[in-house]
Amino acid sequence: MEVPAPSPGPGEILVRVAGCGLCRSDLSMRQLPQAIGARLGWRMPFTLGHETAGWVAGVGAGVTGVREGDAVALVSPTSCGTCAHCLRGQDNCCPAGATGRGYGRDGGLADYVLVDSVRALLPLGDLDPRTAGPLTDAGATAYHAVRRALPRIVPGGTVAVVGAGGLGAFAVQFLRALTAARVVAVDTNPDRLAYATDFGAHDTQSAVDGLRSLDAVLDFVGTDETIAAGVAAVRAGGAFGLVGSAGGRLEKSWFGALPRDGEVYTFQGSTIADARDVVSLAAAGQVRVEVEQYPFEEVADAYAAVAAGTLKSRAVVLLS
Amino acid sequence: MEVPAPSPGPGEILVRVAGCGLCRSDLSMRQLPQAIGARLGWRMPFTLGHETAGWVAGVGAGVTGVREGDAVALVSPTSCGTCAHCLRGQDNCCPAGATGRGYGRDGGLADYVLVDSVRALLPLGDLDPRTAGPLTDAGATAYHAVRRALPRIVPGGTVAVVGAGGLGAFAVQFLRALTAARVVAVDTNPDRLAYATDFGAHDTQSAVDGLRSLDAVLDFVGTDETIAAGVAAVRAGGAFGLVGSAGGRLEKSWFGALPRDGEVYTFQGSTIADARDVVSLAAAGQVRVEVEQYPFEEVADAYAAVAAGTLKSRAVVLLS
Amino acid sequence: MEVPAPSPGPGEILVRVAGCGLCRSDLSMRQLPQAIGARLGWRMPFTLGHETAGWVAGVGAGVTGVREGDAVALVSPTSCGTCAHCLRGQDNCCPAGATGRGYGRDGGLADYVLVDSVRALLPLGDLDPRTAGPLTDAGATAYHAVRRALPRIVPGGTVAVVGAGGLGAFAVQFLRALTAARVVAVDTNPDRLAYATDFGAHDTQSAVDGLRSLDAVLDFVGTDETIAAGVAAVRAGGAFGLVGSAGGRLEKSWFGALPRDGEVYTFQGSTIADARDVVSLAAAGQVRVEVEQYPFEEVADAYAAVAAGTLKSRAVVLLS
Amino acid sequence: MEVPAPSPGPGEILVRVAGCGLCRSDLSMRQLPQAIGARLGWRMPFTLGHETAGWVAGVGAGVTGVREGDAVALVSPTSCGTCAHCLRGQDNCCPAGATGRGYGRDGGLADYVLVDSVRALLPLGDLDPRTAGPLTDAGATAYHAVRRALPRIVPGGTVAVVGAGGLGAFAVQFLRALTAARVVAVDTNPDRLAYATDFGAHDTQSAVDGLRSLDAVLDFVGTDETIAAGVAAVRAGGAFGLVGSAGGRLEKSWFGALPRDGEVYTFQGSTIADARDVVSLAAAGQVRVEVEQYPFEEVADAYAAVAAGTLKSRAVVLLS
Repeated sequence: MEVPAPSPGPGEILVRVAGCGLCRSDLSMRQLPQAIGARLGWRMPFTLGHETAGWVAGVGAGVTGVREGDAVALVSPTSCGTCAHCLRGQDNCCPAGATGRGYGRDGGLADYVLVDSVRALLPLGDLDPRTAGPLTDAGATAYHAVRRALPRIVPGGTVAVVGAGGLGAFAVQFLRALTAARVVAVDTNPDRLAYATDFGAHDTQSAVDGLRSLDAVLDFVGTDETIAAGVAAVRAGGAFGLVGSAGGRLEKSWFGALPRDGEVYTFQGSTIADARDVVSLAAAGQVRVEVEQYPFEEVADAYAAVAAGTLKSRAVVLLS
Repeated sequence: MEVPAPSPGPGEILVRVAGCGLCRSDLSMRQLPQAIGARLGWRMPFTLGHETAGWVAGVGAGVTGVREGDAVALVSPTSCGTCAHCLRGQDNCCPAGATGRGYGRDGGLADYVLVDSVRALLPLGDLDPRTAGPLTDAGATAYHAVRRALPRIVPGGTVAVVGAGGLGAFAVQFLRALTAARVVAVDTNPDRLAYATDFGAHDTQSAVDGLRSLDAVLDFVGTDETIAAGVAAVRAGGAFGLVGSAGGRLEKSWFGALPRDGEVYTFQGSTIADARDVVSLAAAGQVRVEVEQYPFEEVADAYAAVAAGTLKSRAVVLLS
Repeated sequence: MEVPAPSPGPGEILVRVAGCGLCRSDLSMRQLPQAIGARLGWRMPFTLGHETAGWVAGVGAGVTGVREGDAVALVSPTSCGTCAHCLRGQDNCCPAGATGRGYGRDGGLADYVLVDSVRALLPLGDLDPRTAGPLTDAGATAYHAVRRALPRIVPGGTVAVVGAGGLGAFAVQFLRALTAARVVAVDTNPDRLAYATDFGAHDTQSAVDGLRSLDAVLDFVGTDETIAAGVAAVRAGGAFGLVGSAGGRLEKSWFGALPRDGEVYTFQGSTIADARDVVSLAAAGQVRVEVEQYPFEEVADAYAAVAAGTLKSRAVVLLS
Repeated sequence: MEVPAPSPGPGEILVRVAGCGLCRSDLSMRQLPQAIGARLGWRMPFTLGHETAGWVAGVGAGVTGVREGDAVALVSPTSCGTCAHCLRGQDNCCPAGATGRGYGRDGGLADYVLVDSVRALLPLGDLDPRTAGPLTDAGATAYHAVRRALPRIVPGGTVAVVGAGGLGAFAVQFLRALTAARVVAVDTNPDRLAYATDFGAHDTQSAVDGLRSLDAVLDFVGTDETIAAGVAAVRAGGAFGLVGSAGGRLEKSWFGALPRDGEVYTFQGSTIADARDVVSLAAAGQVRVEVEQYPFEEVADAYAAVAAGTLKSRAVVLLS
């Protein structure tokens, strides 16, 4: 569908998109019933794409600190900046986050995208905006999960990353950059394990079984099986972080099964500060974005590959 | 059974018991199969009673900092003082804690009890040792659960204490002493709710339903019902602490049901530092121990009342 | 000087002032050389008054969540909401904070004040806006200082509040609401000590000497003397927080004199979240604002009393 | 002086020394007046050497978890294991730490050293005990200083290590292993800067001047100059950690000069857990010990080199 390039109003920024990452969640959003979207406050239909980066193409009145041509990545979730969560640096919990660029608002799979606030801009410096998009979602979500576990990870400890795909591969890198723990990657896909090793995992295995006394388990899969094995593998005082949305439960008494004096937490995206940290890590060369690039004309093929689960890394669609 | 009063060896302390609290867990320990006890490293049979206080009656060679006649309460769990947990102040996670005074070792339902290390002594000052015992277990366990939630409790927030019995009544008091949150006590027993109000609860209700957006829920019951309602009542970024051993599970997908970016943790007793803090709070008049006192001859009646669940507070058996 | 009542532009809010607290810093600001103000980005002259509360009198386009007639207090420091500090909930460190309502921008000593963003509004609910102003500066600054020390304050510990005037009196109340420590107020003025006792201080003394092994010292005076005595009074691992601007130094080797493994920190106002917490504490009745009220016509007398240091509490000028 | 090899009593461990690091503080201890030593509880004279490692040569009654021949390094400071500090994992603040192996008690510059508790043993696994000694003091002290600053160091930030000698070189390595910050080493000695680069410093400079907006400054020198420049270089909310004992002060008003809302802390050795972490880091290859080795006969030369400040790294005297 052709639409006119939007023009930035007061406080807004227009961004020409360089590349946009695809996410498995896009597939379910395409099938979301109109009624549920309406309840979430979504404007439907909308352009997909919530891993966007590009160049500033225009700035509205009152926008300071950014210039045309600057390379930027975009934070996708909306956040109000004024609620109790936002004021404490927990904008990932802001109620406004039920919508965002690419879910309920127009996202990055277009030549241009309109950004409502300078809060959402992540300056990229010399990083390439064609491939930087995944840093903002796959990267920042994995970073947030790692950051939550950091206080429980000590030198000499071990952390398992369950599911070494797009997010897990980032998690491996963050753990190597920010901890002195041994990192074990777990995946049924040997290609992903090879990737994880390349990214710094000390060890790999095809199933979570057999692990014990871990400082932390980060579960990017989230089935009944990974939750049961993951929780059981955590040491007293350790952390189990659930990011994977496979819908798993724990079929055991919590009193007997949860890690003793440990911590269980679940996915809630990432904060803007998380996304900035991830961009900083990438700029410093401490985290790499591996992507498979598709021209815009092949976006359908790209989504087919996402749906088939055959990608080793993240798919990015090039717009410019 | 009559046994000779033990005599303190090097590093040991002999304590004449003043009073000993009874705990619901005593009832299950009495029925624990010998084989399971053996696996835990328990010496069976042993004297029950893990909420003990009294007076120092003798000190072994090399013991310093304590004098005969000092009023003391006793930490029950064994801890080694040298493992990675103990060295980080997390002695509640020490593997040696599988045994303790009153579970696998002789406890406080006796005229005298032998203490293996000065680590286990909590100086009581002017507090009455006949009723101080419950501070060390019911009190310190509730304190540990509250302490875990503190970083997530903000002024203007609300915390629910589910189960306002022995531990819950302590939790209400700790929350009032250490936070500015509104405290809601939940219990099916109106007598306990009256108690909770007396201890400072701002509000009471007979079921956990209807609560929403809480900073924290501390669940001292632990059934499927309290876990489901409690987890659902926690705000994004809040805490759910499970202390009650009723064996409940969560019959829902963790991804969808756990508090967003919050924290779920479970029971693991308390540290020695926790127990010291609780004694300090009692000494400062900021927490009260309500007990129902039984002479030693009526210990069977006391346990019957514990089993029947008819006690409003904690039962304490007087030894001296 | 008569000026027309401003009218709120897009995103702005007009507030009719009910009362405005006076601060010792107003006196120095009145004498600030134009050149220094210019360097700070101040628009001079400006209306003084940075402890303002009142009622919403008009809302600009796009402002949501607030209605005409709402009682509100105002955060004074400007913060951008988008820098690395703001995004981490540390808006008190935002570079934009060099200006604020009442310093470099028009403040609250006027019938109306224009607020640039809903970020700056603190809903007061049933609190009286005529006297709520000091919560936002004297209150929130003291709260921030207390909050910094909280992790180092344990039950059974002691905290000294040096200087029991406007800020110190708040600090005493926050310590009582949020800790179980013994609180000692120190002041040369017996009236202020009586006040501090009324606010919950366990003990008072006229000089900081003689204190030892404290969990924390909060110094709202800040002379060479209070710093030297305060730092020496802190236990290993304790905190010394300097808020008072009297310009004191420490005339000793830091290596030998700072609290061993402790923490020294200094004033930097408060965050918006701090100010919200303080309003919540006031709404819950856990902190009281004591003020001495002056009609607007007597503002000169009020400032004279501030300059003379004869006020027992905070001066508030009533505008409506 | 020849003395008989001691024999381990109950709870004690005899260690045959492999190597012992020398420390500048040894030089001052040799000149400490008897009276001051007595006041600290020192038994004088005593054998110097507080960076000791070797092999277990005998275990007393009741000692478990260690076997003859095990390679171990030794924690030097005494700690009681039962005080409020020890129970919270802050054994570096234990009052008993005024004495230790090598200061007030016999240290490691001898064939054998007697260890009073298994708490003091750090299992070395495959690490070489001849050169592991400095991990326990130079290493662990630097680690403790780094650990204190960690919460204030973010990706994209910068940390300066002032003084790149024995401790500073360790600090550079810990910062690289545990943070994603840029590390700048500052030293007047070009050889040390070359070392620091080798250990991972991103940048070096010969003076602390010119640095600004740092997340943290760790000052291993501690003169008036390094303190003034270091404190001024810290960003709002950052940390200044003083470890160097050169006796410096800050000749400025604290209110105006300390980092805004930041943190200043000073040396207090390290905890046993710190020392374990450092050994874990060394075992994982994430930190290297560079030493200059001296046979026992040349201990006087070694101390002369320490006194002259000509060593690029740490001197270790080989005993076995």
